[in-house]
Amino acid sequence: MTSDPKSPTPAASGIWGGRFDAGPSAVMQAINASVDVDRRLFEQDIAGSLAHCAMLTACGVISRADGEAIERGLTEIRQDIRAGRFEWKAALEDVHMNIEAVLRERIGAPAGRLHTARSRNDQVATDFRLWLREALDSAAEALRAYQRVLVARAEAHADWVMPGFTHLQTAQPVSLGHHLLCWVEAAERDRGRLMDARARLNESPLGAAALAGTAFPIDREMTARALGFDRPMANSLDAVSSRDFALEALSAAAITAVNLSRFAEEIVLWTSRRFGFASLSDAYSTGSSIMPQKRNPDAAELVRAKPGRIAGALQGLIIVMKGLPLAYSKDMQEDKALVFTAFDDLILAITAMTGMAGDLTFHREALEAAAGEAYSDATDLADWLVRELGLPFRDAHHIAGAAVKAAEAEGRALKDLALSRYQEIEPRIDARVFEVLSARASMESRISFGGTAPVRVREQAGAWKQRLAQ
Amino acid sequence: MTSDPKSPTPAASGIWGGRFDAGPSAVMQAINASVDVDRRLFEQDIAGSLAHCAMLTACGVISRADGEAIERGLTEIRQDIRAGRFEWKAALEDVHMNIEAVLRERIGAPAGRLHTARSRNDQVATDFRLWLREALDSAAEALRAYQRVLVARAEAHADWVMPGFTHLQTAQPVSLGHHLLCWVEAAERDRGRLMDARARLNESPLGAAALAGTAFPIDREMTARALGFDRPMANSLDAVSSRDFALEALSAAAITAVNLSRFAEEIVLWTSRRFGFASLSDAYSTGSSIMPQKRNPDAAELVRAKPGRIAGALQGLIIVMKGLPLAYSKDMQEDKALVFTAFDDLILAITAMTGMAGDLTFHREALEAAAGEAYSDATDLADWLVRELGLPFRDAHHIAGAAVKAAEAEGRALKDLALSRYQEIEPRIDARVFEVLSARASMESRISFGGTAPVRVREQAGAWKQRLAQ
Amino acid sequence: MTSDPKSPTPAASGIWGGRFDAGPSAVMQAINASVDVDRRLFEQDIAGSLAHCAMLTACGVISRADGEAIERGLTEIRQDIRAGRFEWKAALEDVHMNIEAVLRERIGAPAGRLHTARSRNDQVATDFRLWLREALDSAAEALRAYQRVLVARAEAHADWVMPGFTHLQTAQPVSLGHHLLCWVEAAERDRGRLMDARARLNESPLGAAALAGTAFPIDREMTARALGFDRPMANSLDAVSSRDFALEALSAAAITAVNLSRFAEEIVLWTSRRFGFASLSDAYSTGSSIMPQKRNPDAAELVRAKPGRIAGALQGLIIVMKGLPLAYSKDMQEDKALVFTAFDDLILAITAMTGMAGDLTFHREALEAAAGEAYSDATDLADWLVRELGLPFRDAHHIAGAAVKAAEAEGRALKDLALSRYQEIEPRIDARVFEVLSARASMESRISFGGTAPVRVREQAGAWKQRLAQ
Amino acid sequence: MTSDPKSPTPAASGIWGGRFDAGPSAVMQAINASVDVDRRLFEQDIAGSLAHCAMLTACGVISRADGEAIERGLTEIRQDIRAGRFEWKAALEDVHMNIEAVLRERIGAPAGRLHTARSRNDQVATDFRLWLREALDSAAEALRAYQRVLVARAEAHADWVMPGFTHLQTAQPVSLGHHLLCWVEAAERDRGRLMDARARLNESPLGAAALAGTAFPIDREMTARALGFDRPMANSLDAVSSRDFALEALSAAAITAVNLSRFAEEIVLWTSRRFGFASLSDAYSTGSSIMPQKRNPDAAELVRAKPGRIAGALQGLIIVMKGLPLAYSKDMQEDKALVFTAFDDLILAITAMTGMAGDLTFHREALEAAAGEAYSDATDLADWLVRELGLPFRDAHHIAGAAVKAAEAEGRALKDLALSRYQEIEPRIDARVFEVLSARASMESRISFGGTAPVRVREQAGAWKQRLAQ
Repeated sequence: MTSDPKSPTPAASGIWGGRFDAGPSAVMQAINASVDVDRRLFEQDIAGSLAHCAMLTACGVISRADGEAIERGLTEIRQDIRAGRFEWKAALEDVHMNIEAVLRERIGAPAGRLHTARSRNDQVATDFRLWLREALDSAAEALRAYQRVLVARAEAHADWVMPGFTHLQTAQPVSLGHHLLCWVEAAERDRGRLMDARARLNESPLGAAALAGTAFPIDREMTARALGFDRPMANSLDAVSSRDFALEALSAAAITAVNLSRFAEEIVLWTSRRFGFASLSDAYSTGSSIMPQKRNPDAAELVRAKPGRIAGALQGLIIVMKGLPLAYSKDMQEDKALVFTAFDDLILAITAMTGMAGDLTFHREALEAAAGEAYSDATDLADWLVRELGLPFRDAHHIAGAAVKAAEAEGRALKDLALSRYQEIEPRIDARVFEVLSARASMESRISFGGTAPVRVREQAGAWKQRLAQ
Repeated sequence: MTSDPKSPTPAASGIWGGRFDAGPSAVMQAINASVDVDRRLFEQDIAGSLAHCAMLTACGVISRADGEAIERGLTEIRQDIRAGRFEWKAALEDVHMNIEAVLRERIGAPAGRLHTARSRNDQVATDFRLWLREALDSAAEALRAYQRVLVARAEAHADWVMPGFTHLQTAQPVSLGHHLLCWVEAAERDRGRLMDARARLNESPLGAAALAGTAFPIDREMTARALGFDRPMANSLDAVSSRDFALEALSAAAITAVNLSRFAEEIVLWTSRRFGFASLSDAYSTGSSIMPQKRNPDAAELVRAKPGRIAGALQGLIIVMKGLPLAYSKDMQEDKALVFTAFDDLILAITAMTGMAGDLTFHREALEAAAGEAYSDATDLADWLVRELGLPFRDAHHIAGAAVKAAEAEGRALKDLALSRYQEIEPRIDARVFEVLSARASMESRISFGGTAPVRVREQAGAWKQRLAQ
Repeated sequence: MTSDPKSPTPAASGIWGGRFDAGPSAVMQAINASVDVDRRLFEQDIAGSLAHCAMLTACGVISRADGEAIERGLTEIRQDIRAGRFEWKAALEDVHMNIEAVLRERIGAPAGRLHTARSRNDQVATDFRLWLREALDSAAEALRAYQRVLVARAEAHADWVMPGFTHLQTAQPVSLGHHLLCWVEAAERDRGRLMDARARLNESPLGAAALAGTAFPIDREMTARALGFDRPMANSLDAVSSRDFALEALSAAAITAVNLSRFAEEIVLWTSRRFGFASLSDAYSTGSSIMPQKRNPDAAELVRAKPGRIAGALQGLIIVMKGLPLAYSKDMQEDKALVFTAFDDLILAITAMTGMAGDLTFHREALEAAAGEAYSDATDLADWLVRELGLPFRDAHHIAGAAVKAAEAEGRALKDLALSRYQEIEPRIDARVFEVLSARASMESRISFGGTAPVRVREQAGAWKQRLAQ
Repeated sequence: MTSDPKSPTPAASGIWGGRFDAGPSAVMQAINASVDVDRRLFEQDIAGSLAHCAMLTACGVISRADGEAIERGLTEIRQDIRAGRFEWKAALEDVHMNIEAVLRERIGAPAGRLHTARSRNDQVATDFRLWLREALDSAAEALRAYQRVLVARAEAHADWVMPGFTHLQTAQPVSLGHHLLCWVEAAERDRGRLMDARARLNESPLGAAALAGTAFPIDREMTARALGFDRPMANSLDAVSSRDFALEALSAAAITAVNLSRFAEEIVLWTSRRFGFASLSDAYSTGSSIMPQKRNPDAAELVRAKPGRIAGALQGLIIVMKGLPLAYSKDMQEDKALVFTAFDDLILAITAMTGMAGDLTFHREALEAAAGEAYSDATDLADWLVRELGLPFRDAHHIAGAAVKAAEAEGRALKDLALSRYQEIEPRIDARVFEVLSARASMESRISFGGTAPVRVREQAGAWKQRLAQ
């Protein structure tokens, strides 16, 4: 080792070592620079600067000529970045300084007036809120598309019967359409959370300056309006220091991803050889040159995994923000990489699920056969005893259990058990009982609001179609 | 080891071993029973059963006499539980079965009719939503109390000047009231998230039965109304399988806890010897018999730690729910312990912060002295150069930097530097510059909307008082 | 609201409100007291005090008479606590003060000498390490029992053939014993992590005092030895401030829980009607009075869920510890509830899995039938082409694919396709090919080290039996 | 919306929309392709293929000529990738297929023999373990460098006195060297965890093939040896399905990051104006053109934040792996992005802390002055009463408390209180008491093993130097 405690030995050679050979400044730049991540904010950054510039001009803080020079310069820079002609420099640290430096090169002194009455602290908060607002809108719109596909498929399969599971054991028959509409409901709540997050973050930090506001006679309403914000934020410290809006957006994303992962798990199960309920086309599975019938549901598995990175990002930002005093601390710079990745993953997952929801081919016979297995109509027998014979539910359960036992002993389904056998168990049972004994009859009988009867499913699908058409 | 692979060796002696000596059934009961946790739902469970019973009677599914017997029995059981006279049995597994078993003992056969057209799946979902609704209301009300204290303290300290920090380095002077109002803003968003979660979960699962709805002619609107729900849930599978409402409530709780932890960290800092900005009374600190001046801010430290258990609970439930297919799976039983602990912790943390916010004594001189250190008025000098001399902001920064350098060389504050020294740096500077050079002047000058000038702080405090009075 | 900002309005009535009615002191006690949680440390606390007392006596810091009085008093208190005759008081805050207070009541002045040269900071660190050491040992021993059951079952089923899955799609036949041994391997790494955590934490903090060590002539080696620690910790600040040992134990627990959750998921799948690979007896499933054949795999589902609380506890403690400066901070008090719950859950989960591993009845015909489906021997055909005809692997794959396509067109298995059909695809194929075409032949052929051939599985099971017998 | 449920509407325009315009295949490729991430494994992938090829040749599975062609091709491809001349194609999905496709282009048919007796499942597991092994080594080596700097600084500051804090309140004086050595101890445990993870993962999956092993006569010991693994893995299912090694590495990384974040927090505090204990040079802080004295400790803040992404990655992979049945599932593909980012962040954080540990300039007077404040010698007074007058500790505490009260009333330090005042409180106190009353005397007196006395600190520093020199 070195005998000089002030010269840090760089990390090992190998994977990373080389990057830090140049000593402290290389390390500092590596940990400090964010432009690789935050340059993705360039559209928002320039939009924010244009609004700020227009406001400074209108309020007389800068001259009209300077304002015009700035506007022209920024517009050109935006064109260059969009066209891939802009050279980003890590030495300039972040997206804001990169753009400002080039602006100065191009228009000279007036560039130095753009930063009047603002700082990087309110600037980055503004950019980030604008970006996240758009991300939330995109995710919500993607959920709408997903719901539309699900509703159409649900309506088309309203009277297909399949087994409903509890504990992954066959429980009662349900409508396939009913099952699909369950995910429409979940997606609606997911969308609601995204939109609530959007509404709550849609306030403008611009003009909070470093942390305390400014003595310049600025008009924060004007910039808020220009950027589509509902209002300026009412406390300058809050404007530059809060990141709860990002935590909320990540929470909404994580919960959405959990809901998607559940349907994705079902797709993996349903398309397995052991279930055989559905198939995915080549478009959403990977095959094998050697086993032509094999369709690995890769996309479903990847959606199932997505809560990992998204909820991991949420946890990451909670850790970062925990215990941070006011006002801006550099720790907050970690927010963007976490949020960008999470929303990329989320929108990709929703889009893939939309694709799979449309792509799945269901196998009617397999579903119906499975629905009729395992005495899934035993509850219907018990309910019949309650309804028609007036038995208490718990007694009816006991009798139904005896009937299942008898049927099992004979290796038959309940509907195939002789009436005389039923009457040995409970003499008042009569032939009407057979009307309720089948998977289809069971499904069709559950007509309570929210129930699985096709008539209810079609009503729900119809209501959703109307709602989603708006 | 045993040679019989079917008899599991119980776990080691020591801390746990003894519990499982009795073999499989002891293990199964230990992992399966939830009554130790879920008996906390007894009020909600009985309220739900009463509503269900009234509806069954009204709809003619059960007789009036049976309905009355059930109602009387449940009311008595509720009294017994409230009075601590009820014996909970782990062998009966959960809160629902414990209550139903005792009901049967007391009223006999009619008890068997209560479970008509429902199952434990919709029952527990109903109970849990009712509990969480009340928890969200309590947390929101606790936040209101916290905001009221903060606003009162902010108003009383609107013109106290303190250092505003960035990177924990002195940056610009701010009003203490302004700082406190920052946490009022954050609490308002926290409250909004809790209320949004409340609104979204306030739908009734009751009547979804096991998973598919029911063939009995029930009225789900009636039970929903009786229990204060906005409407019955529209999909029976969704009603028994969704737990996103619990994830959302935990997210809102976790974000609130993060915001509280930030103010708690400030209390730890402010009451430390090195800051000396504030003191806590004995009521909110622990002393030491040997060091009478010592006041450990235990409550603040514990609030700072609370995001641990609360965000841990959120991540825990995300893990539980990830990838679960429809409909009810036993995994979901884990939801309650996580949510109960998280909301206990949250409400305790808010209440402790409310207490501390009211208890803190601020030290005016220490705050003001610290506010004036470290050339915290350098930005004001720069702004003056822009405003009065029309310099571009970046040039003004450069000049202000030179002035600070000169003042530092002389060991003086900016306001104590001679005008002639200023004029050596920039000849156009005149004596008016001294008007902006002090911590107080700096604070008072920042009158932009949301800025730290006392006039703005008082406006904001006034607006909050009105809002919170409603 | 109250007009006095110093009197915090207590939280809402309702679920929590009443607890805090008594004002600040009630809130402070509620958030501060830990005795409800940490009294579980009483054995460790008294063992630590006895060791400390014996050392103080041996070193002449306290008199022999005082030492004997303390020892007698502590021994009696321990008996009382074990017998449930000890009254814990929240007002005395924690386990340490409760025991010390009663000691003083019983033996008077000498009790005041026990705390010489130590503080609660090193005391609680000692207690907690002792507790966790025992928990890690118990968990490791429980894993050993689990492995023993798995190995016995693996040996008994070494030549049972079942489908091996990738993407939950049938891939290649494997031995059931091989599958079970996979979880033995995972458990061994889990056990290794628990034991590494144990080794790393087994150092004594006792004698570090509040944070800086002590001027009393104590012998830390002696107390370390008496408590079974490998050595005293070498830095007093580290001794009272570090909790990485708890984070490591939680990590090891969380990873173990994830491995268990994977096998638990398989049990849920295997015992489902759609797989039908295995059954659980009544001991490990819950039935239904109405559907006698139904066996809900509740215990497996609950084990599948356990990573939730355990990994949630890990994340919780990470949040608590992040960014805490030296030395002791009250935040650390949160460590115990998180660790206690996590290890209770872990040991329960391992024990339940041990029970299920022994309880499962496998269905040989179903496993073998499933193993032969879906052209699971196509890879064997390709490998035969490489081995016997010298074809490059990629070409062999292509030919096997063509054969599968031909067999599928005829609705046959590969072994039932005529030799002439094979020769149309590749003329050099001869009758020997049929030797490799069956699930059993496939399984038996994979004799590479670590492969699924029963001969290899029996070797591995034998090696494990020897290893586990030690 | 579209009326065709099979054509998913692509996500919104805006940020992502355009990417998925091309329909299902674009979505599938976007979610499925991993080459952007896993191409970072190219060195490991080629090393693994070379070892596999050499083994196949040695075992006679492929011819010597084919083996040589493959080796030559792979070596050239490696050169091209290193030189940046290799074109990666997302359509080829991953690093393995990209390399294999180019190999086939270059050497033709023999390329098709390389994949004999292996699959992508064991290949990627091998690559990933090799990569992680190197990452763990690099992190461990970086920790060594960090420890060396800390030890050198500790030795140089062994007798500098500073305040030791509990609850961030001044508690007892400690040696600055002692404080720094605390972090050396923590880093040693961190390093131990990384090395334990390395030892446990250092087994070769290669030859496990898809999941079941192979019928080819391969030599897994040979490839294991060639790649530096300790042995081949003993169960082929385990070899392709386990990711606990990655979870363990992430745990070790997360715990390390938490320890670093704690020292980082101290640097932020110490370099703040309110503490003034230390300064960072320009190399590790960012300045401000306007406030020349301002040094924002950006690097320390960013290290403080690093547990966010690293523990978030751990949580992410726990979520991914929870409940996954055997064998390979596509979900596991998420492991690499999480692990790569976490180790990049970890090594950067260690390196930055090493730099800062060497860079900090400590302020002796400020430290010593703070150490003497707040009656930090009150415990020494109490200990003196126990030691010299034989008082029980609790009584001595009471007397010391009275003395502090008296001194506080006079506005003096304990050492400046008159002997007569002491004797009013306890007549047996004599002039020797003043020997223990000063921050320095306090520090020097704590000579117990692990204590803060400079003599002990120098011993520890010396022992560490020897240990780290090896």
